[in-house]
Amino acid sequence: MTEAAMNSWSKAVEVINKARSISIFTHYDADGDALGSAFALAIELKRLGKETCVFLDEEMQKKLVFLSSKGIDTVVYEVGMETRRFDLSIAVDSGDMKRLGKRAELFKSAAVTMKIDHHISKDDFGDYNFVDTKWAATCVAIWELLTELVGEISDEAAIRIYTGIYTDTGGFKHSNTDERVHLITAKILSKLGDLSYISRIFQEKSKGMIKLYNIAVSKMEFFFNERVVYAYLAKEDFEKAGAIMEDSEGLATYLREIEGVDTSVFIRQGDKEDELKASLRSNEIVDVAEIAASFNGGGHKRAAGFTYYGDEQSMKKMLLERLGRTLNDT
Amino acid sequence: MTEAAMNSWSKAVEVINKARSISIFTHYDADGDALGSAFALAIELKRLGKETCVFLDEEMQKKLVFLSSKGIDTVVYEVGMETRRFDLSIAVDSGDMKRLGKRAELFKSAAVTMKIDHHISKDDFGDYNFVDTKWAATCVAIWELLTELVGEISDEAAIRIYTGIYTDTGGFKHSNTDERVHLITAKILSKLGDLSYISRIFQEKSKGMIKLYNIAVSKMEFFFNERVVYAYLAKEDFEKAGAIMEDSEGLATYLREIEGVDTSVFIRQGDKEDELKASLRSNEIVDVAEIAASFNGGGHKRAAGFTYYGDEQSMKKMLLERLGRTLNDT
Repeated sequence: MTEAAMNSWSKAVEVINKARSISIFTHYDADGDALGSAFALAIELKRLGKETCVFLDEEMQKKLVFLSSKGIDTVVYEVGMETRRFDLSIAVDSGDMKRLGKRAELFKSAAVTMKIDHHISKDDFGDYNFVDTKWAATCVAIWELLTELVGEISDEAAIRIYTGIYTDTGGFKHSNTDERVHLITAKILSKLGDLSYISRIFQEKSKGMIKLYNIAVSKMEFFFNERVVYAYLAKEDFEKAGAIMEDSEGLATYLREIEGVDTSVFIRQGDKEDELKASLRSNEIVDVAEIAASFNGGGHKRAAGFTYYGDEQSMKKMLLERLGRTLNDT
Repeated sequence: MTEAAMNSWSKAVEVINKARSISIFTHYDADGDALGSAFALAIELKRLGKETCVFLDEEMQKKLVFLSSKGIDTVVYEVGMETRRFDLSIAVDSGDMKRLGKRAELFKSAAVTMKIDHHISKDDFGDYNFVDTKWAATCVAIWELLTELVGEISDEAAIRIYTGIYTDTGGFKHSNTDERVHLITAKILSKLGDLSYISRIFQEKSKGMIKLYNIAVSKMEFFFNERVVYAYLAKEDFEKAGAIMEDSEGLATYLREIEGVDTSVFIRQGDKEDELKASLRSNEIVDVAEIAASFNGGGHKRAAGFTYYGDEQSMKKMLLERLGRTLNDT
């Protein structure tokens, strides 16, 4: 742990210790790191005797449900829902306030608010903000906070932290994978033994997914000396493959791995009229967080996304122009 | 390090210190762990002032050439080739003598012979044998041996050890990934920083490979309640995809990741007449090392292979019968 973080955690520990009831928030479209952070935190707060509830914006993805816990109150929030007033609310893995979606008011309604995150963002929306982009995953921060807060972290929480670290480092592959990631993982494996069943959950491919990948490969286009690969899947493609939305999740990463490619762009038709969902991944040249931000999206340097309303061809033109400029500037 | 291994290494260190010239051998079809082990060892032996040469059975795969080193003599051995007589020969990552291929006589010609390996095998073909199936990779053993032998391991050797560990654990995903794997990796990253460029080498897919995967997916067949997936690629399929042999390497692993599948079988036509190369992978039920052994092949419980001479249909029938028996027994 860095000295700076160590100092910070003592403040976080103080704030948490003072609170009797604590609500926990993830970003919407919650991923492995968001849910891993939220439930690891909730499990340990409950062990400390706190009254705790995790508030979600929507149902968990099927493959992530194992991160929830029977012992932890979990509520999919609806506007107008009656809830008690909490002493403290903590938002994990959420760079901006707007990432809380319809739960923003509920988050703010607590007596004290806290943000723990690792995204690039200037929106320090909590009364207390613990943010460091050097944390490979928010779960790295949660591990360090909980070590300060409870000492020995429970097995139940450790599995969730492992999962958050695993997913946000792309299974220990991405450039954010550092010494600390491996040291925390070593400690977790020394307690829990073989955790390859978790990597299998994230490696697992449905038949629909495999067929969808085949369609994407047959439709992919290359630009800028093949340094950019672009693939668009319409709703019909999902139907043809017998695939659901979740099945397309790793597709941008899959395309980024093609020889010579720096940046992959995967676009899928959204649920709403004219809605397009873009996922961008890069290897080392393009800062895709910057590109996504110019479309009002967000994310990390190497993995980002945005939602666009309009037709695919005009979005593609704008996006390729931006990518072309970035590639020429470097 | 286990106490047993610690004791063993002192003997290995003694034997190595006595030798002035040392030849190093990998198994044929050398992979990341074999070449990583060989060159990490050679680099550190050279630093100790030993005369060292790595003997290979064939040219290195293109993507593995970065594991070699300008400073290290490397010879692709041909029968009858004249070489000096070495004081010590060390075979790494080679379970059986026959895995040395045409280099077996050369290996035996040294005054003293040593084997360092982690495969299941009863063939202790060295004068000294350091074998433990609990080592996730032979590179784990090499790290521990070199720590005893030289203390601080050089950056050049550390990169090779990282690569061997990375490849033999499937990028920290397979069930052999243990605390020790992550601790060694943490130490290497603390010295070398971001090593994601190495994971990219192994994630990288050529266009030929992507097209080959599409063909394999369109041809795959399922057996035994979809717990076994089978795919066969003939030479024509490689030609159609514009793919080379290396492009099919990850295919068995890719197929194993399909939902509900325990065991994947990928067969490709070999270079020789009637030759079939089989790769088997399993998740948790079938011991594929056992199945492969019954076809005179070898490997690990979860990853094994064999070569078969005959026609595909009769091999497929025999193989599926064996798999069916194993699945019914469990």
